[in-house]
Amino acid sequence: MTPTDVSTEAPVLATLRSALPADRVVVDPGVLASYVHDEAEWAEYGTPAALVRPRSTEEVRAVVLACLEHGTALVTRGAGTGLSGAANAVDGCVVLSTEKMAAITEINGVERLAVVQPGVVNDDLRAACAAEGLWYPPDPASAPWSTIGGNVATNAGGLCCVKYGVTRDYVLELELVNGLGEVVRVGRRTAKGVVGYDLVGLMVGSEGTLGVVTEVTVRLRGSRAPERTVVGYFDSVVDAGRAVEAVGASGVVPSALELVDRHCLEAVDAWKNMGLSVDANVVLLGRSDAPGPAGDEESATMLRCFEEAGATFAAASTDEAEAEALFDARRLAYPALERLGPLLTEDVCVPKAAVPEMLARVEAAATRHDVLIANIAHAGDGNLHPLISTPPGDDAARDRAQEAFRQIIADALDLGGTVSGEHGVGLLKREGLAQELSPQVVAMQRAVKQALDPHGILNPGKVL
Amino acid sequence: MTPTDVSTEAPVLATLRSALPADRVVVDPGVLASYVHDEAEWAEYGTPAALVRPRSTEEVRAVVLACLEHGTALVTRGAGTGLSGAANAVDGCVVLSTEKMAAITEINGVERLAVVQPGVVNDDLRAACAAEGLWYPPDPASAPWSTIGGNVATNAGGLCCVKYGVTRDYVLELELVNGLGEVVRVGRRTAKGVVGYDLVGLMVGSEGTLGVVTEVTVRLRGSRAPERTVVGYFDSVVDAGRAVEAVGASGVVPSALELVDRHCLEAVDAWKNMGLSVDANVVLLGRSDAPGPAGDEESATMLRCFEEAGATFAAASTDEAEAEALFDARRLAYPALERLGPLLTEDVCVPKAAVPEMLARVEAAATRHDVLIANIAHAGDGNLHPLISTPPGDDAARDRAQEAFRQIIADALDLGGTVSGEHGVGLLKREGLAQELSPQVVAMQRAVKQALDPHGILNPGKVL
Repeated sequence: MTPTDVSTEAPVLATLRSALPADRVVVDPGVLASYVHDEAEWAEYGTPAALVRPRSTEEVRAVVLACLEHGTALVTRGAGTGLSGAANAVDGCVVLSTEKMAAITEINGVERLAVVQPGVVNDDLRAACAAEGLWYPPDPASAPWSTIGGNVATNAGGLCCVKYGVTRDYVLELELVNGLGEVVRVGRRTAKGVVGYDLVGLMVGSEGTLGVVTEVTVRLRGSRAPERTVVGYFDSVVDAGRAVEAVGASGVVPSALELVDRHCLEAVDAWKNMGLSVDANVVLLGRSDAPGPAGDEESATMLRCFEEAGATFAAASTDEAEAEALFDARRLAYPALERLGPLLTEDVCVPKAAVPEMLARVEAAATRHDVLIANIAHAGDGNLHPLISTPPGDDAARDRAQEAFRQIIADALDLGGTVSGEHGVGLLKREGLAQELSPQVVAMQRAVKQALDPHGILNPGKVL
Repeated sequence: MTPTDVSTEAPVLATLRSALPADRVVVDPGVLASYVHDEAEWAEYGTPAALVRPRSTEEVRAVVLACLEHGTALVTRGAGTGLSGAANAVDGCVVLSTEKMAAITEINGVERLAVVQPGVVNDDLRAACAAEGLWYPPDPASAPWSTIGGNVATNAGGLCCVKYGVTRDYVLELELVNGLGEVVRVGRRTAKGVVGYDLVGLMVGSEGTLGVVTEVTVRLRGSRAPERTVVGYFDSVVDAGRAVEAVGASGVVPSALELVDRHCLEAVDAWKNMGLSVDANVVLLGRSDAPGPAGDEESATMLRCFEEAGATFAAASTDEAEAEALFDARRLAYPALERLGPLLTEDVCVPKAAVPEMLARVEAAATRHDVLIANIAHAGDGNLHPLISTPPGDDAARDRAQEAFRQIIADALDLGGTVSGEHGVGLLKREGLAQELSPQVVAMQRAVKQALDPHGILNPGKVL
């Protein structure tokens, strides 16, 4: 810790210092700088009064009580891989990082559940489960870095969610510190339960605005059959979109159905030198994890859908290493493009039948607003991630990108879609939320926020 | 409608009559008598001022506005097959039956969803979906009578939920009239969505205390492979419980794993004369719907688990008609036992590993309190339904049954379980809710109720 002029310190700091061991409270601006925003580059952020890194539920409680005492905003964050600005600091706030609460407390094969602290990294939990023949499905592309607490806060999706659902579908029970500074447990460890309102579901996706999660009990599945991959090359995103629609109509539920375009593949190759030599403008990656002959059938159906939609090349992959390289490229697309300049990330989700039209409208928005839009997508569930890329320092391009961003949101809503499939509202989608939800529903949301955070200290200004 | 002395009528009636077509409002006591309670025989109920049977969302809204104007309690009900008293009338209330809103508006194979009015009967939706090669999984034993609206209100479970989840897992979007009398839509039609708090999840299972649902959009699955059944006979519920625990530990997720005891089978046979000649005290019915060889493997594993737990007979059924008769008997167990005398129904859900111990404690409670307890159970997810049966008119037995009821709830909580796996709180489990949830969580629940039903008209006195 650097020396600080205590006379100018925020009053909350003295309370934090008296309540917590010294190493939990950080005010060094050099350290703080790494904790002031998430990966949503275009969202504003402020200067916090302090960073705290508690190591127990009781320490988290002490932080919440300190913030309550001083009316100080509390911004909780995991790894900061979010894409909507939900973890961004506000001026004078306390930033609470869960990084020191990273224990896997229990993995239970009979009950098929795991109990973890919020700072456990997604891939670490997956690996620990795999060692027991179990599987934690939600797999955001950020899985090597993002934490379960952050995944819970944003209701994170991922690649396998088209078949296996999102984070909310896997959260059984939460321990949290609520807006009154009380430690509470909501949900249950049993397979089913209907005692009282679903406060677990309410907390999941609430972006730290309703409580600070201190422990998560997640449902697990058993290990699954090895996946097989079907690769399709397409001249246009619209052709690829038609293939996605056809898969939907075929009745096959793939274990992944990802779209990645040439811009993304080239950006990844330029960064990682993976030797991706794909002769296509758009690649679709379909997967089936159905066991035995059912998997053969699903692969064959996807292949036929790709071909009939106009694939220039389509094949059931015989080389799973090559297939995995393509999936790695898809997961690395965001950071790879981020290297090239400021990136504005969409997260619209539309009905499957609207995927071709929505992809056409994304192309039209790029042309109309003269910006580069790269595309990755969890195409199988209609969740598209147009990445609007601008040259560094080009303010005019930034303005045009903002226009394209708004256009894409309007188009998604027009096609019966939603503004955010999995990234959350944070700061970037607040305007979109107001477009998507009626004023009456926004008022219901505000009433819930007011009920559970009556003093307004929990991540104020986010979501609503 | 019978003539009524308008001078003694509740003021809300005049408002209802001016707002709705005449046939929507019923005050005939003979008709009202069929709408004053659900199937929870032991729960109290009052005398309503009127029954309304609206035919549209706007008519539902008119009812809510009338109740708001006069501060009248509004009790919404589907088919009244609930088992916790959640649909029971309170004195002077308006009972709203959704029975005239029973249209299936859309079944969409590409998006895999259906849109229905709340009064659609569960089995009717399932049949309509099946005709399109689609499947709506949640299958409470009441499926031939219960409605989707009622299933949503109680977050109904069922037989296949051990593998496929409960009603909440299938609700995508709701239209409802909220506590301010506004028509709102919450949720979305897309596969994923994270814009704002999960008001859909909050409404599901809220037993009509947070809003009146007027339209439900449910997620569908594709038709599945035919099920195969494994039958096991056991001398005791504890042996059967050990088989359930073994199936859990084996990693197999059966598509059903039901327990039904001799009391239930005999009661059904006495009623329906099905010729069930089962030489066992307890029967376990396991099912697998895994396709092809995977289904063979799952069946073989379940068979082995049954045998190793001490089954006196176990076999993969070669006669699916016979297997279906056993499942029919399981579904009919509740009404069959109801014929024999007042029935108090438990709905505790415990961790899988605790199933043998919990079943032993149920037996002990029956002995200790000298009451007959029949057992049916969604054993695979630890959701037990001990049915405490008493002779008609025997008040002492009723008192002992109440004691046994409380004992079983205490035992379930002691074993890490919940008071209600799928029936809901209603009136019968309010005491249990207060035992299960901490005062702080109850206060959070009350804050949510107050936020969304500020005038307290929506099914007051239920849940909390």
